Amino acid sequence: MQSENGTTLETYLAERKALIDAALERFLPKAEDGPEIIHQAVRHSLFAGGKRLRPILCVAAAEAVGGDGQEFISCACALEMIHTYSLIHDDLPAMDNDDYRRGMPTSHRVFGEGIAILAGDALLTEAFHLLSCPEFTRDDNTEKRLQVINLIARAAGTAGMVGGQVMDLQGEGKTVALETLEDMHRRKTGAMLAVSVVSGAILAGATAAQTAVLSRYGQDIGLAFQIADDILNVTGDSALMGKGTGSDLSRGKTTFPALMGLEVSRNRLAELVERAAAHLAGFDHRAEPLRQIARYIMERNR
Amino acid sequence: MQSENGTTLETYLAERKALIDAALERFLPKAEDGPEIIHQAVRHSLFAGGKRLRPILCVAAAEAVGGDGQEFISCACALEMIHTYSLIHDDLPAMDNDDYRRGMPTSHRVFGEGIAILAGDALLTEAFHLLSCPEFTRDDNTEKRLQVINLIARAAGTAGMVGGQVMDLQGEGKTVALETLEDMHRRKTGAMLAVSVVSGAILAGATAAQTAVLSRYGQDIGLAFQIADDILNVTGDSALMGKGTGSDLSRGKTTFPALMGLEVSRNRLAELVERAAAHLAGFDHRAEPLRQIARYIMERNR
Repeated sequence: MQSENGTTLETYLAERKALIDAALERFLPKAEDGPEIIHQAVRHSLFAGGKRLRPILCVAAAEAVGGDGQEFISCACALEMIHTYSLIHDDLPAMDNDDYRRGMPTSHRVFGEGIAILAGDALLTEAFHLLSCPEFTRDDNTEKRLQVINLIARAAGTAGMVGGQVMDLQGEGKTVALETLEDMHRRKTGAMLAVSVVSGAILAGATAAQTAVLSRYGQDIGLAFQIADDILNVTGDSALMGKGTGSDLSRGKTTFPALMGLEVSRNRLAELVERAAAHLAGFDHRAEPLRQIARYIMERNR
Repeated sequence: MQSENGTTLETYLAERKALIDAALERFLPKAEDGPEIIHQAVRHSLFAGGKRLRPILCVAAAEAVGGDGQEFISCACALEMIHTYSLIHDDLPAMDNDDYRRGMPTSHRVFGEGIAILAGDALLTEAFHLLSCPEFTRDDNTEKRLQVINLIARAAGTAGMVGGQVMDLQGEGKTVALETLEDMHRRKTGAMLAVSVVSGAILAGATAAQTAVLSRYGQDIGLAFQIADDILNVTGDSALMGKGTGSDLSRGKTTFPALMGLEVSRNRLAELVERAAAHLAGFDHRAEPLRQIARYIMERNR
């Protein structure tokens, strides 16, 4: 896939991922700041080969409104820390009870449940520490920083990710209606993806109209991402997923293909990706990575 | 106990507790914002009869430097939310495995482990949402708000409370040295008590010198509080504690009385309380509640 300025999406993603990984290394709490094992546990999950989709969306949104993505990389890293905390807690025996993620043993399998819970707690806490660090707050952006902290906390809380995970837990072993399934995913995945885009845009000086449109883009790719994941869970191979194919089905979780069939799920996915790209119609070439990321979500499972 | 202006400490604590409880009701996420069970779980632990020591310290410190404590009650409530999250996670089977706290069944006993973990996650997240709410940030205090968020996140993270809980987990079944025991409690309890005092002071416009002195006061009463707790654990009755007396010993945790004996522990407690009060020598009568709280910590187990 080739963008207007000649960079492929693969190159863009790889370059941004390298910048984010280097920044995460810099921003992690120093080893002397706490017991060694908690730092090992935090690093085990944070550097387990994630795609860095949320921080890349944050940086790409800052760039789409004319900002320098690098300038807001601390916010991007905080979003990845929150995502990683949610994976560690979701994998726990009391939740999804997953032994592997991306082919690596999960935190509680390596460090025990107690340390895994605390590693998640540490990452969530550290994210807000990073978001409020004085070195990233200038005189002219303290208000925007507070706004971004507020929006991220809301997206991560009961109205968003935590609420979605509660619905996920409660839905196990039941067939839930399409509306409930979409609501669950909108909270569990969509809210954090949308706020990733929104926070980068706000910090880079987006107008309220731009922010609103980018939020809708984020919500649409969030739901698209989840449908694509469900399709992969049925059709993909387990090496690609890093966990057993069909694992959601075996835990009695409702999936989009189970409710609508594969064909309708694929059509819905295509529609969402189309609509996500359409939200960006008012942006220039600097939004090209965001447009390509939307298409990439659909194409990775072909 | 009678203060200069004629209010007893009991009256002061009861009045401030009532204000804080009412504010917590106001600040909690609305029920329509997420699945009902998570709100039930959050409320079960948040309204389980806590003393509200951390929020009262925040309010009392704001008053000690001449501020209106009520004005900063959102920060006080956020501190209580973080404290409650830590209790829910500490009680989990993978941590202390406590079935009761203050005579009430713990979160995971009522709602199951998955929801208990998520209730803790929700409270930690909601605390940062509350701290960054636009309604509590005025044009002239966004910088102070960010500073307070940063200090609270640091006190709650691996350098503070999470780090202390890791040390606590690792110390089970071992006798640890006095230095390690103090370091553990300094992180696990002291850091959050100190930041409770400091955040109220900063928001109310304390000077750097006042903030530094109040931080030392908070650290000293934090350690005093823990020694008093250890003494109660040996000598107190279980009705007062709401859990079985001697429960730390039975889990093979090192306590101050076990390391130093009861008499030396009591002397150390008295010294710390004396020193905490001495830090406040430069403050006027408005610091009287803080002085009395220090003494109260020592006297509650006589």
